[in-house]
Amino acid sequence: MEDPREGATPVIAPPEARRDRDAAASLYGLTPALVDAVAAALEEERAADARRLARPLHPADLADLIERLDEAQRRTLVTALSEEFDPEVIAWLDEQVRDEVIELLGPDRIARAVSELETDDAVYLLEDLEEAEQREVLDAVPAGERALLEQGLDFPEDSAGRLMRRELVTVPPHWTVGQTIDFMRGAASLPDNFYEIFVVDPRHRPIGTIAPARLLRSKRPVKLTEIMGGDFKQIPAVADQEEVANLFRQYGLVSAPVVSEAGRLIGVVTVDDVVQIISEEAQEDILHLGGVADTGIYRPVRETVKGRFNWLFINLLTAFLAASVIGLFEDTLQKIVALAVLMPICASQGGNAGTQTLTVVVRAMAVREMTLRDGWRVLRKELAISAINGVLFALITGGIAWAWFRDPAIAVIIGSAMIINLIAAALAGTVIPLALEWLGFDPAISSVVFLTTVTDVVGFFAFLGLATLFLL
Amino acid sequence: MEDPREGATPVIAPPEARRDRDAAASLYGLTPALVDAVAAALEEERAADARRLARPLHPADLADLIERLDEAQRRTLVTALSEEFDPEVIAWLDEQVRDEVIELLGPDRIARAVSELETDDAVYLLEDLEEAEQREVLDAVPAGERALLEQGLDFPEDSAGRLMRRELVTVPPHWTVGQTIDFMRGAASLPDNFYEIFVVDPRHRPIGTIAPARLLRSKRPVKLTEIMGGDFKQIPAVADQEEVANLFRQYGLVSAPVVSEAGRLIGVVTVDDVVQIISEEAQEDILHLGGVADTGIYRPVRETVKGRFNWLFINLLTAFLAASVIGLFEDTLQKIVALAVLMPICASQGGNAGTQTLTVVVRAMAVREMTLRDGWRVLRKELAISAINGVLFALITGGIAWAWFRDPAIAVIIGSAMIINLIAAALAGTVIPLALEWLGFDPAISSVVFLTTVTDVVGFFAFLGLATLFLL
Repeated sequence: MEDPREGATPVIAPPEARRDRDAAASLYGLTPALVDAVAAALEEERAADARRLARPLHPADLADLIERLDEAQRRTLVTALSEEFDPEVIAWLDEQVRDEVIELLGPDRIARAVSELETDDAVYLLEDLEEAEQREVLDAVPAGERALLEQGLDFPEDSAGRLMRRELVTVPPHWTVGQTIDFMRGAASLPDNFYEIFVVDPRHRPIGTIAPARLLRSKRPVKLTEIMGGDFKQIPAVADQEEVANLFRQYGLVSAPVVSEAGRLIGVVTVDDVVQIISEEAQEDILHLGGVADTGIYRPVRETVKGRFNWLFINLLTAFLAASVIGLFEDTLQKIVALAVLMPICASQGGNAGTQTLTVVVRAMAVREMTLRDGWRVLRKELAISAINGVLFALITGGIAWAWFRDPAIAVIIGSAMIINLIAAALAGTVIPLALEWLGFDPAISSVVFLTTVTDVVGFFAFLGLATLFLL
Repeated sequence: MEDPREGATPVIAPPEARRDRDAAASLYGLTPALVDAVAAALEEERAADARRLARPLHPADLADLIERLDEAQRRTLVTALSEEFDPEVIAWLDEQVRDEVIELLGPDRIARAVSELETDDAVYLLEDLEEAEQREVLDAVPAGERALLEQGLDFPEDSAGRLMRRELVTVPPHWTVGQTIDFMRGAASLPDNFYEIFVVDPRHRPIGTIAPARLLRSKRPVKLTEIMGGDFKQIPAVADQEEVANLFRQYGLVSAPVVSEAGRLIGVVTVDDVVQIISEEAQEDILHLGGVADTGIYRPVRETVKGRFNWLFINLLTAFLAASVIGLFEDTLQKIVALAVLMPICASQGGNAGTQTLTVVVRAMAVREMTLRDGWRVLRKELAISAINGVLFALITGGIAWAWFRDPAIAVIIGSAMIINLIAAALAGTVIPLALEWLGFDPAISSVVFLTTVTDVVGFFAFLGLATLFLL
């Protein structure tokens, strides 16, 4: 049989700009051709072939493969891999698919998986289980590890305490480089890899960190206190993961100690988890701003319909609100039908200008470039931008409207409405996310619907209202 | 004088949900109160005070401080810091502000900065300079380093070659752990920190990598070939940085070797740079989808107006296109003014439903969850979702319209138009970004404007067209 990983020919000739990207595609263990080959093998009940193709994959790639299969194929593959199934794969799965796979593996296999995984991955797996199932799995785990996992689960969802790994390397400050190296060569249960060695005081509070590379470059008699870095960030275990991600990004960290309320070192957060969080948080903001409540392209149609329906339903209500504003002016529209033709223009321009402001504000807050304190400064700037753009678009729109309908009054009216609505858009685009943030909500989630309500209502009301005042 | 870092009292009482975030705020070196204090010191020409406040800051925090000041304050601060100014700060600055600071420091100071920085930061600084200035700076740098920097600049913009650090640790495969440690203790010019030691063959091609932690835990006589990992990703120097970021995210990497076309090891990319890229790429997608062409809340009003104007101008043209579609039906509107009232509803619903589809597709492509090959599968799913939501909203909208205008015909017409437009929205939301991607454009940039054109035109045309056919 031909190896599908080599037979991956592009379906369509890519333009010049995409060559480099395709060159890089060979770096991934999973190719579309391999997915097809595994799917075909599963369909034709050649389980051994599927297993042979899937076995060499990196856990992250195997997770992607499982995600791309349909439900029936997934079941066959996971069952076929069974004992060979690397539990680390679970940590890489999309939430939706993870639940399915956990279900397929059953509590016994999951309990063994939890023991094999490092604590951060184990907690990540456990937090998704229902309470009864979680209990069942925890009871099957050795007592010492169980205590660590239970502590992890006691921290709030999405906190540093949930995210941290408990396995870490701590040494007392009076040791030398040589003592530390000897200790590490002898110690049985050190983590697989680590980016910091923590120097702790007798109460287990971190007082310094040493990169392994630094230790390697120092001579044996050197004291740890001479080479340790004392200026490091300690993350409170209750800190939100978004905050952890911001800290890592702000200071370019690779790992950071997590401390209890009493300041004791209880774990370490590493950058690989943070990369996932940064991606996910940005992803969430993008999807929320786009009106998609829940992430994941692997959700079944039924659930996706439900998630999107809710958002569209709220939008429909605001659309009817806008329609009822138009309804106030039925008499005017009856007399001058040209108004109906031009009416959506101000509303649409306002919606787009407001979305620009909103997007900038939401993102600036998400990456801490802006806080509530900066609100006034940002609002003034956005108002200035909108006023200038408002005047420019008033002239352009008025000009086109004049040329079209040969009526200078309509031109003046649509121009004035444009200025009014663009200023309303800047105001709403700044104030709405700030207000949501202040009230403790995620500004990405519901800002857009409030914004377009404002710009539609103001847009229609200003245009038709001015027309009623001055044309009738 | 009171230390402003301690006097940072919150301006407004935060709700319960925000407590944890505020607790974490103390982890940052830069507080709003400190920004205010520095700004005040600069305004009152107390340069020494400003310097004293800024000096203890981490380079990333100092960069943030400089960004938050206005242009005049920036100039005073950078001049006041002068020789104390840590060149690493430049690497943390927003592009807009970076250009200003480089201008302020002048070519001599920049040339010295380039020599002090590691190669990746130095290339990052150099690539922003104009050609003549770049030449001037490079000429002032020692020859050996200059060659490395020139090589870096020869790689395409946004490639792994630009991103990589040239300083790395390479060892031959026949060495033992002991030999390696002795070499590192003796070597004068090793990088400050590193996460991998590369084992290379005589042609300098990487054949394995060893984490420093692994080396520390191994006994001195152990051969490197016994402990090195052979399954690692080699990044071609010409690979795009977005692709590099995807690789790091996919496999949870912390560092990865960069190789020339001949397979020689020429540099290393580390995760701290990748974290920035992941943030920036996601940021760009968010802003582009929101119709904001260029990032950065520190751009002056004039430039921001220009960037946003272009986008709004295109939107205005499409709004007039939609208006001209309405214009086709002036006679119909003249006769039944209720249509004008309901007319924006279908267009608005279509725009929102299409944005949902578009957002999901653009993001799935950005994080490689979806490629062109998956287009057909995704399109079918999106059409199914839209058909279901279309029918549901046809019933709801028709029901409300009936109750409002007491006319079953209008209810049927708006319901039918709703189904048609939601299906058009799913089609456009999937096909537009795929087509842009296929043509080699960034689908995040211009998808939205094409989409809303489709949903506006189809929305108005379907509703008013059906009304003209069946009501007149």
